[in-house]
Amino acid sequence: MADAVLDFARLKRTGTAEAVLCASKTPAQIDHILALAAAAGKAMLLTRLDAAAFDQLSAGHRAQLVYDQLSRTAVFGTPLEGALKPGIGIVTAGTSDLAVAGEAARTLLFHGFEAPVIADVGVAGLWRLMERLEEIRDFRVVIAVAGMEGALFSVLAGLIAAPVIAVPSSVGYGVATGGHVALNTALASCAPGLVTVNIDNGFGAACAAIAMMGASEA
Amino acid sequence: MADAVLDFARLKRTGTAEAVLCASKTPAQIDHILALAAAAGKAMLLTRLDAAAFDQLSAGHRAQLVYDQLSRTAVFGTPLEGALKPGIGIVTAGTSDLAVAGEAARTLLFHGFEAPVIADVGVAGLWRLMERLEEIRDFRVVIAVAGMEGALFSVLAGLIAAPVIAVPSSVGYGVATGGHVALNTALASCAPGLVTVNIDNGFGAACAAIAMMGASEA
Amino acid sequence: MADAVLDFARLKRTGTAEAVLCASKTPAQIDHILALAAAAGKAMLLTRLDAAAFDQLSAGHRAQLVYDQLSRTAVFGTPLEGALKPGIGIVTAGTSDLAVAGEAARTLLFHGFEAPVIADVGVAGLWRLMERLEEIRDFRVVIAVAGMEGALFSVLAGLIAAPVIAVPSSVGYGVATGGHVALNTALASCAPGLVTVNIDNGFGAACAAIAMMGASEA
Amino acid sequence: MADAVLDFARLKRTGTAEAVLCASKTPAQIDHILALAAAAGKAMLLTRLDAAAFDQLSAGHRAQLVYDQLSRTAVFGTPLEGALKPGIGIVTAGTSDLAVAGEAARTLLFHGFEAPVIADVGVAGLWRLMERLEEIRDFRVVIAVAGMEGALFSVLAGLIAAPVIAVPSSVGYGVATGGHVALNTALASCAPGLVTVNIDNGFGAACAAIAMMGASEA
Amino acid sequence: MADAVLDFARLKRTGTAEAVLCASKTPAQIDHILALAAAAGKAMLLTRLDAAAFDQLSAGHRAQLVYDQLSRTAVFGTPLEGALKPGIGIVTAGTSDLAVAGEAARTLLFHGFEAPVIADVGVAGLWRLMERLEEIRDFRVVIAVAGMEGALFSVLAGLIAAPVIAVPSSVGYGVATGGHVALNTALASCAPGLVTVNIDNGFGAACAAIAMMGASEA
Amino acid sequence: MADAVLDFARLKRTGTAEAVLCASKTPAQIDHILALAAAAGKAMLLTRLDAAAFDQLSAGHRAQLVYDQLSRTAVFGTPLEGALKPGIGIVTAGTSDLAVAGEAARTLLFHGFEAPVIADVGVAGLWRLMERLEEIRDFRVVIAVAGMEGALFSVLAGLIAAPVIAVPSSVGYGVATGGHVALNTALASCAPGLVTVNIDNGFGAACAAIAMMGASEA
Amino acid sequence: MADAVLDFARLKRTGTAEAVLCASKTPAQIDHILALAAAAGKAMLLTRLDAAAFDQLSAGHRAQLVYDQLSRTAVFGTPLEGALKPGIGIVTAGTSDLAVAGEAARTLLFHGFEAPVIADVGVAGLWRLMERLEEIRDFRVVIAVAGMEGALFSVLAGLIAAPVIAVPSSVGYGVATGGHVALNTALASCAPGLVTVNIDNGFGAACAAIAMMGASEA
Amino acid sequence: MADAVLDFARLKRTGTAEAVLCASKTPAQIDHILALAAAAGKAMLLTRLDAAAFDQLSAGHRAQLVYDQLSRTAVFGTPLEGALKPGIGIVTAGTSDLAVAGEAARTLLFHGFEAPVIADVGVAGLWRLMERLEEIRDFRVVIAVAGMEGALFSVLAGLIAAPVIAVPSSVGYGVATGGHVALNTALASCAPGLVTVNIDNGFGAACAAIAMMGASEA
Repeated sequence: MADAVLDFARLKRTGTAEAVLCASKTPAQIDHILALAAAAGKAMLLTRLDAAAFDQLSAGHRAQLVYDQLSRTAVFGTPLEGALKPGIGIVTAGTSDLAVAGEAARTLLFHGFEAPVIADVGVAGLWRLMERLEEIRDFRVVIAVAGMEGALFSVLAGLIAAPVIAVPSSVGYGVATGGHVALNTALASCAPGLVTVNIDNGFGAACAAIAMMGASEA
Repeated sequence: MADAVLDFARLKRTGTAEAVLCASKTPAQIDHILALAAAAGKAMLLTRLDAAAFDQLSAGHRAQLVYDQLSRTAVFGTPLEGALKPGIGIVTAGTSDLAVAGEAARTLLFHGFEAPVIADVGVAGLWRLMERLEEIRDFRVVIAVAGMEGALFSVLAGLIAAPVIAVPSSVGYGVATGGHVALNTALASCAPGLVTVNIDNGFGAACAAIAMMGASEA
Repeated sequence: MADAVLDFARLKRTGTAEAVLCASKTPAQIDHILALAAAAGKAMLLTRLDAAAFDQLSAGHRAQLVYDQLSRTAVFGTPLEGALKPGIGIVTAGTSDLAVAGEAARTLLFHGFEAPVIADVGVAGLWRLMERLEEIRDFRVVIAVAGMEGALFSVLAGLIAAPVIAVPSSVGYGVATGGHVALNTALASCAPGLVTVNIDNGFGAACAAIAMMGASEA
Repeated sequence: MADAVLDFARLKRTGTAEAVLCASKTPAQIDHILALAAAAGKAMLLTRLDAAAFDQLSAGHRAQLVYDQLSRTAVFGTPLEGALKPGIGIVTAGTSDLAVAGEAARTLLFHGFEAPVIADVGVAGLWRLMERLEEIRDFRVVIAVAGMEGALFSVLAGLIAAPVIAVPSSVGYGVATGGHVALNTALASCAPGLVTVNIDNGFGAACAAIAMMGASEA
Repeated sequence: MADAVLDFARLKRTGTAEAVLCASKTPAQIDHILALAAAAGKAMLLTRLDAAAFDQLSAGHRAQLVYDQLSRTAVFGTPLEGALKPGIGIVTAGTSDLAVAGEAARTLLFHGFEAPVIADVGVAGLWRLMERLEEIRDFRVVIAVAGMEGALFSVLAGLIAAPVIAVPSSVGYGVATGGHVALNTALASCAPGLVTVNIDNGFGAACAAIAMMGASEA
Repeated sequence: MADAVLDFARLKRTGTAEAVLCASKTPAQIDHILALAAAAGKAMLLTRLDAAAFDQLSAGHRAQLVYDQLSRTAVFGTPLEGALKPGIGIVTAGTSDLAVAGEAARTLLFHGFEAPVIADVGVAGLWRLMERLEEIRDFRVVIAVAGMEGALFSVLAGLIAAPVIAVPSSVGYGVATGGHVALNTALASCAPGLVTVNIDNGFGAACAAIAMMGASEA
Repeated sequence: MADAVLDFARLKRTGTAEAVLCASKTPAQIDHILALAAAAGKAMLLTRLDAAAFDQLSAGHRAQLVYDQLSRTAVFGTPLEGALKPGIGIVTAGTSDLAVAGEAARTLLFHGFEAPVIADVGVAGLWRLMERLEEIRDFRVVIAVAGMEGALFSVLAGLIAAPVIAVPSSVGYGVATGGHVALNTALASCAPGLVTVNIDNGFGAACAAIAMMGASEA
Repeated sequence: MADAVLDFARLKRTGTAEAVLCASKTPAQIDHILALAAAAGKAMLLTRLDAAAFDQLSAGHRAQLVYDQLSRTAVFGTPLEGALKPGIGIVTAGTSDLAVAGEAARTLLFHGFEAPVIADVGVAGLWRLMERLEEIRDFRVVIAVAGMEGALFSVLAGLIAAPVIAVPSSVGYGVATGGHVALNTALASCAPGLVTVNIDNGFGAACAAIAMMGASEA
């Protein structure tokens, strides 16, 4: 059978490690990849691993995984050591966005960053965001997660100087099904300093935030 | 040739008069309709009449039209008499939205309503909206015009109790081309009391606002 | 864990209370929100709560909820007191639209309005609408629910003076899958006084209707 | 140069003659095709021939063409002889739909059918359609042309027994740009006996109407 | 509860009877409608009734229904009497299209027409169509069902004089998912005499075919 | 100013030379690129060079270009020498497809292949294709160009053994605007041996045909 | 019941045999087709046969099928004899693309070709592709499978002279859901010699590769 | 007339100044805004100002503007003083992307950053990028501009550690028309550290790059 080829050099080359997107892989394929990681003595992050798929992995691998159901992430082995680094914050428009925020937070943790989550500050009740604004202004990079119409992205990016990484979430119905409205809102925003990643891509937002933090150390 | 059939009974039946959407009509067809209105002794509102089309109308009709180039509207004959009624306000996110706001304002004027325009209060600079908020809260119905990502709709509807009629404008580029992002933002909004009309449809928003004002008198 | 932030001030600020859209929340998250509402002594409306999710809520909360399966709504605690107010009517094109109509009716009830439902008057059999027209003309605000091609919206708005809030329903197949055709029909309508909300958004239509009724009292 | 291959056998095989869609052809290509028709002694219908393209044809060909600017059709040579046949009617929602209706009417005329046009009976003013209903019920096949939201299609097909061929027209703006809303309305209609052709395809509707008339003679 | 309003007058008015689209109705709603039909002494056609929904109907109603699983149709009561009428034929591109063809055939049968099905003559193997061409040419109206790219529609309509009603089927994957490619192929076809109904709409195609047959008797 | 970087090594690496897509370049940029080619002593193919842009190039460069207006291609310098190679054929559905066919033919000529064009054999008149079938079966690779519904692709690929490269052309209106229907027809085709390139991409089809011919020599 | 019509002549006519796309067929229909193949003494390839459908086939047919779950293909009877032919290679961007690659490989095997699979060489870690490049350059035709953004297609086609057949896979989420981004990337690529088939169409890519190999023998 | 409301506080609040998007404004509106800026003594950046609009501005304003036609940007007044800051680089896939790259470069210059442009390194000729890789690795933030299929984004972000801001450009035809394919490629990329802005939004990319640089100084 054709082999998986893991990109262990990615961490050194790009500053973030390869992760395994489990959504379209069979349990056998995931087990195979974990065996490769174990053989190489590498820690590994798994994303989009839903509970049913987790349950189908080999018992040995399940025992070595730290699994979080809401964010559908699992960590295999021991990631980076040392004190957790501050500077990145995560803001969500609603409670429903916490799964995506969790994927971002767990990815950051895997790479040694601790990122507080400020939840449920959508702009339909503007006071909720305003109450937390000073706290948000202390972050050097902000990840914002919002579904439905995503108006949070523009308002937030118009109020702070840090770069804002919009993560549109697939929370919504009717025209908002799948997260495309929130995505387009982020892209079409008039506010400066706003950039976007794919719908529900908490992992990618975390990687980009790490890259931005790294930029400051060059 | 097949004849136009004007719905002069619409004003009595629905509270707003039929208007002529000129965009897809030839100058000859518009002249023909104006002749019918003149014969019936009726005033008439023309929308989407761009300058080039206006110039091709018969000289006689041009002389009887009060034309406004920015909003591409023209009034034929004398509309409703009496003091102008207050209660409806128009809010725009940017300068570029003034053409659509003008179509709404001129439609309201034709029906006897005076609607102030509060322009350029988009939420990328939130203080601009906040400065005018008390003024806006005095309106009984608010028409809001915004293009690009249309974040104004959600923020505004979350702050006031009056019904807000979103008019997405076709101001934007890239994903925002044609106004579809602003439209979807309005439809997907989490804010209560927000309703939507077609892109650039200042005329329709005005008719709906009039219907809402009428509801209060029943 | 990050906390939900409920916007209890919304009722005072906008005239309608915050509701909880349950579709993308876990049962644990919904239980958490209900606990916050209980602690604050507030009544709360839950929407998009399907039977499977309802069954997974804590027994204590289930006992305090008045649940309606067809409309997927539940009421927690005691809503507004006093006599139910008239003036808003709901019209549907077909039997299949009754779930969405139910969400609107139950939202109105939560806010103190009684809204009769006139069902199954789609325009493929025009006599059905005509038979009920006088009754419909008595409403000060009309909510219209239709799926498939949504031709009801235009015909209805062309016949009455009250504002008509179109709620496209996701009833249909082929090109009509998801309700987008009915939505676009509402937006593109030539009839005056017609406004639109998101597909299946009975809740939003009810909030907008309340705002329109409020406009009449200012 | 590669030669055009005209399908003169189509009339015999299918009951309608090949026509030349001029929109994407150069004047030289159209002149070449007309020369082939002349050489074969055949009459020919040209569609989508706008005024600018007509003016660039060779003077000899221009002299032999009967050109109609509104419908952008031209007839080359002498079509079928004999008395014009009745039975097909054309109904339009608005004045703006007359160009497409004209393409259908001229195509029918080329094949020996006379089709009355009943214009401007869109359902936003339902009485206009009702006034003409008995007249419409006399047709054996009805071609209906409508843009914007195309609600006419459903209402009309729900009222008569003859087959209705919907021709969505590209009359509209915002979501209705290009005629896609009217097309989808026709396809999603709940009304029986309704079939559809491509946007603005008056020619195709006419060919289908002729085929339906032919069915009755078999 | 709001009542269903059945359009029993439709048969007389339009030549085809109202049918019940079961896909978006609860079993309780379908049972309610059948009770109304029974009370009125009317036969009724049910479409899009999948096996699971059929099993949830009341035992009494199930006993009175003639159910066909492949086409998901059921007949309640006794439809039109008398000898079955010929003249309409059904052609399919593949075996997978037989479910949709069955909906058309059963609808025709309900209205007193017997329609032979000529299956699996898609044009990737052109000889299959050519072998049956003379047989097809004998029909006065042809219903053609095809999914994937739907090339059958153009080839067939280019070969025969009868009107062809294209029914795009939702058979396909990738770009063809949902039947939109076959639909657009039918609409964009260069072949004359071709008209289209919604994806998978075998019922609508049958109603239109009946209308076309009726045209011949006027 | 930032410099263009020409990929003169592409011919050796991939078997086809880099060409200059002129559509989105200014005349100054094209002149700059031609100067680089002249300095390197390389022949160069220009595509999408419309007449207006050609006229704005420097007189010196215009004199060295062999320009073809219909295909909007120009050849700069002297391409490959030696006898023209046979084996590739080009088939078009209509006269309107000849511009795209010309881009393919001129690209092939630049690389030393002579490709006959068999034009106007669309399947609405199937006999036109059948008449030329033996001739087409002699090609080792066939490029097929079609717009509208593109039914030619499936029929052709179902009849011959050579690989067929579909080039959807942007010939069409309504749903077929821009060539997307023909593209999807090619992709969704049930016929074997059919592959596709971008809409109007005659250049890409020619490059692929050359690669396929090359495969036979390995 | 209407019969399936198998195109056993396809192999001789086009070089590749008809296969049965099982996705939209009932088990009864598949069993019926297998019985026809058995009666004709023909081998047959089944695609898109998922495990649940396989289990519903008749026991007799199951025993005669060689089934592969990952690629969802099954072979009935004995395909072509003789030594397996080399020359075609399959390259995938990720592990998730192996199911589609498997459909291609099994189709090739059915027709007598052995195609090595070079897996997991996506360009986010460019070294993985570079390491295998010489091996890939030895193939006369390359099938490339990639989901997500499909950047592999352009990079690969820019590096080799053999024709590259892109098979976009439906691996991805957010904007990449369904494989449309990878498809469009393949179509819009600037790299020469690249052609495309439908999303997930490993079968079609294999048929095209065989046609291209055949071209070399003509 | 309603007044423009300039957000001069934006620079202090967010680190980047408000710019005027001229594309949908009349010359009179732009002149009005420039007068406000002059009165406030502020420098101002104008974007999307095409040559025809520039020529219609008042002579006085034209004299004070430094206009660049390729990037369609103009600077009014004197921007920030002091030495230009390094650290941001711009990379383009093709010559056609230089207009968008110019908008980014001029925006950066207005804010005091000097950004080198490395042009024409698209991955169809991978050596072009590889030759410049070390140079690119020295930037702390990279803006990448690409149209067509945008494969450059993934390859580049997979090779360097700095954050990459993708600016999809509207360079392309067929499926790539309008830049949507390049946009989706950037969003769907598997490469880490990649974020996206709207199509052609060089201005927004520059603002985001400045925010990222600022993050490093906190």
